[in-house]
Parts: sequence; C-alpha cells; structure tokens
Amino acid sequence: MSASRPIGIFDSGVGGLTVVKRIEELLPHEEIIYFGDTARVPYGTKSKETVTRFSVENVEFLMGFNVKMIIVACNTASSLSLEFLKRCFKVPLIGVIEPGAKGAVDSTRNNRIGVIGTRATISSGAYEKAIKKLNSNISLYSQTCPLFVPLVEEGWLDEDVTGDVARVYLAPLKKRQIDTLILGCTHYPLLSYAIRKVMGKSMLFIDSAKEVAKEAKGILAACGLLNGTRQRRNTKFFVSDEPDSFVSMGKRFLKRRITAKKMG
Amino acid sequence: MSASRPIGIFDSGVGGLTVVKRIEELLPHEEIIYFGDTARVPYGTKSKETVTRFSVENVEFLMGFNVKMIIVACNTASSLSLEFLKRCFKVPLIGVIEPGAKGAVDSTRNNRIGVIGTRATISSGAYEKAIKKLNSNISLYSQTCPLFVPLVEEGWLDEDVTGDVARVYLAPLKKRQIDTLILGCTHYPLLSYAIRKVMGKSMLFIDSAKEVAKEAKGILAACGLLNGTRQRRNTKFFVSDEPDSFVSMGKRFLKRRITAKKMG
Repeated sequence: MSASRPIGIFDSGVGGLTVVKRIEELLPHEEIIYFGDTARVPYGTKSKETVTRFSVENVEFLMGFNVKMIIVACNTASSLSLEFLKRCFKVPLIGVIEPGAKGAVDSTRNNRIGVIGTRATISSGAYEKAIKKLNSNISLYSQTCPLFVPLVEEGWLDEDVTGDVARVYLAPLKKRQIDTLILGCTHYPLLSYAIRKVMGKSMLFIDSAKEVAKEAKGILAACGLLNGTRQRRNTKFFVSDEPDSFVSMGKRFLKRRITAKKMG
Repeated sequence: MSASRPIGIFDSGVGGLTVVKRIEELLPHEEIIYFGDTARVPYGTKSKETVTRFSVENVEFLMGFNVKMIIVACNTASSLSLEFLKRCFKVPLIGVIEPGAKGAVDSTRNNRIGVIGTRATISSGAYEKAIKKLNSNISLYSQTCPLFVPLVEEGWLDEDVTGDVARVYLAPLKKRQIDTLILGCTHYPLLSYAIRKVMGKSMLFIDSAKEVAKEAKGILAACGLLNGTRQRRNTKFFVSDEPDSFVSMGKRFLKRRITAKKMG
C-alpha cells in the first residue's frame, strides 16, 4: 500500500473541518480528501439506521480516491456507525470517540468527566462505553446540547444568547464537579469561549479533533504509511449540496479561503 | 377522478403538521397522506437544486397513493421547487407561499408587511414576487430566523432564551412599522407567543397553514373533488427516518398521539 495515497475524512457537513485543521497542522505532508454531506446534514437528530446508511455511502465515495485511511470526523456517525463500517470496509477506519475518551481519561485528576454532544451521540452511550473500557473507576456525566450546532452555523459564537443557552445546558454538569469536559461534537470547539465562561477557567477541555489527529498519526506511523514527501500537500473538499454555504462557513473553521466541489 | 381519493401533504419534517391540523379542522372528511422527509431535514439551509431533487422524490412517493391533490407544506420547498413540480406532475399542486401572501395582502391596512422564514425561503424572494403580483404598492420587509426551527424542535417555545433570540431577529422588522407579519415557516406558529411579545399585541399574524387549508378547500370545491362522505377520515403519516422522534414531536404540533411508518 503506497504511503502517498490520501487520507479520507467525512462529516455530516462543515463540523469535520475542525479535524481537517488539526490533521493539516500535525501531518502537513498528507493529502486529504474531505467529504461533507451537506445535503443531508445534520446527523445528530437522526436514527442509527439512517446515519449508518449515509455513512456507508460516504465511505464508498472516499474509497473512490484510493484512500489509505478514513477518519469519521463526526461524533454522531462515530457513535452510531463506526463498528458497522469497520465490518464492511477493509481500509483502516478511525472515529473521534475513542481518541476523545482516551484524551479525557489521561487528563482527569479527580476521575469525574463530563461530555456534551448531540442527542444521537449522547443517547448512544458510546463515550460511556469507551471510557469504562479504559478506566472503570471514572464517573461520566453527559448532556445533550442540540442548539449548539445551529448557534455555530448562525455564527453566534459569543453573543449573549449563546451564553444564556450554554448556562441552561451546562448547569447540571457544573454541579457534578467534573474537572474535564469532552467537547463531543466537532462544532463545539468554536463555542469554547462561551462554554468556558460557564464551566470556569480551570476546566480541562478535550477537543476530539486534536485527539483524533494524534491517533491518525500514530496509526500511520505504526503501519509505515506516513507520507515521506517534504512537500506540503493539498486538501480537496467535496460536498453533497451546492458548495456556497459550505465554503463561506468553512472560512470560519479553517481561517482561510477554500473551494469545494459538489459530488456527482 | 374520484373525490374519495386522499390529499397528499409533504414537508421536510414535522413542521408541515401545522398544515395537517388546519386541513383536518377545515376538511374533516378528507383522508390525508402525510410524508415528512425526516432523514434529510431541514431544507431551509439547502440549495434550490437539492431541495428540488428531494421534493420530486417526495411527490413521487405521494403519487403512489393515488392522491387527488398535493400540498407542499414547507415554505422552503414551496419557494424553491413548486414551479418545477407543477411542470413535472399532472396532479393539482399547491404551496404555502401564495396563500400566505394573499392572506397578508387582504389583512394589511398600511401596506407594510413583514415576512420571516428560513434563509432559503427569504433569499428566494418568493414572498416578494407573490405579493407584488397581488398589489405592487405594498412594501415587504423580510428577515431570516435560522434559530427558530431548532428552538421549536428543542421544545423551547417560551423560554427566556427564545424571547432573546426573537428580539435579536425581529428588531429590524419592528422599526419598519409593519402591521402584518407572515410566519413564513411551518414551525413558527408554535413560537407565536414569543414573537408577539416582541412585535406587540396589535400585529396581525399570517399563518400559512391556515391560509393553505382555505386554498385547498376552494380548489377541491371548484373541481368537484370535495369528499362527499360524512365520515371523519384518517390521516396516515410516513417518514424517511425512524419514526420515534417524529411521533414525539408530532404530539406537540397536533395535540394528540400519532403513529408513523418509515417508508421503504
């Protein structure tokens, strides 16, 4: 298997660009093919069956680029569909849940961790399972935050209203005396400021995007698949809806201009 | 064409149930087949091409029930795709824009109308076009409210935060001295209380659901297609994702328990 082949990344939409950003920082010599399923976004409110059907199609699309690894850069798809995808496809597949869980377990001092995510991610219990496997003495407290994604997509990252919504959602977690909080949705790092204002300065945030980039690097290195070139490689973006709004939101995530192509 | 055939209604998800409610009230002897595209909801953030492709598939599904009329109970799909659907299908097709526009034109006293809707509905200019055709002296002021749908779906109909969001969105419209406001999205009637608190007691609200029910009755009567039975008829609900969350949200819209079947 050639190390010069690209890494495939998919997400329900634009959120997975937080993963792209971290991969580009950590692995600047890798080519990336990104697919955002913008015609069917969001996944976080949908069922396991439907998210899995969409995920299979997304992986099939990426396989067309002869990718050497696929990153499921969506917490919902990782929670609901990763196991199924691993059974269906031979390419190395990694999701954001296990790296995020590992990052949280490594970071907590008082064994009390919180996780916030979409309704589908939280109700799947995927973080619970991943954390218990690593350390069964840890208590995990979870909270769904369905309005966080629309707030990010509206660009209201630090409005008063965003702070108010964060206070309502996070109040139950604040009482639990957690010292580590997993941002269990790729959109949430953009709300770090508002979330920190509620949770306090000393709270440790786990950004799954950062954790999954480390995991990807480790696996590629172990398999001898790190790209040996010294050239900076490009990222190509594909979407299932017209690209305009993805491109304009993408700027917010990547802090640079991008172009994207509609698939099919 | 037999008058006992059902009426087909589709929406991107659960919002079109406001239309079902009004049709059931006004036309209790009609059988209704409802389809909510819950696997691909929402439409309001997506492109014309994609919404039209989805709408064609939805109409094809409803045609399988031998419907005598199809109501596009989604402002976004009505704005972007109704003209195309009318060219493709022979069944009478009505959307929510023209009835809503007519209701607003009939109701305004000062010829200043406001409309709120999704990004796709507002940027299509469909309400503008429909209103100008009826009365070119009317000034229309429009505003997108992307967070209103997620707020309704979260069930935050009258929280403080909802009031705050409404104040931010509606402030520009409030300055325009409109006397009539079109609720240009089927979810918005559920936020009437919060919207009225900002816009004032005397503001006339146009609920497209109510207007489209009147329009449907008029057309069926004119074509001799009103169902002659004196029996109360059933409504059947179909969705594209697993039905659980549609069923639980449906209760909020219809104030009764419903069951729904996943299509396919």
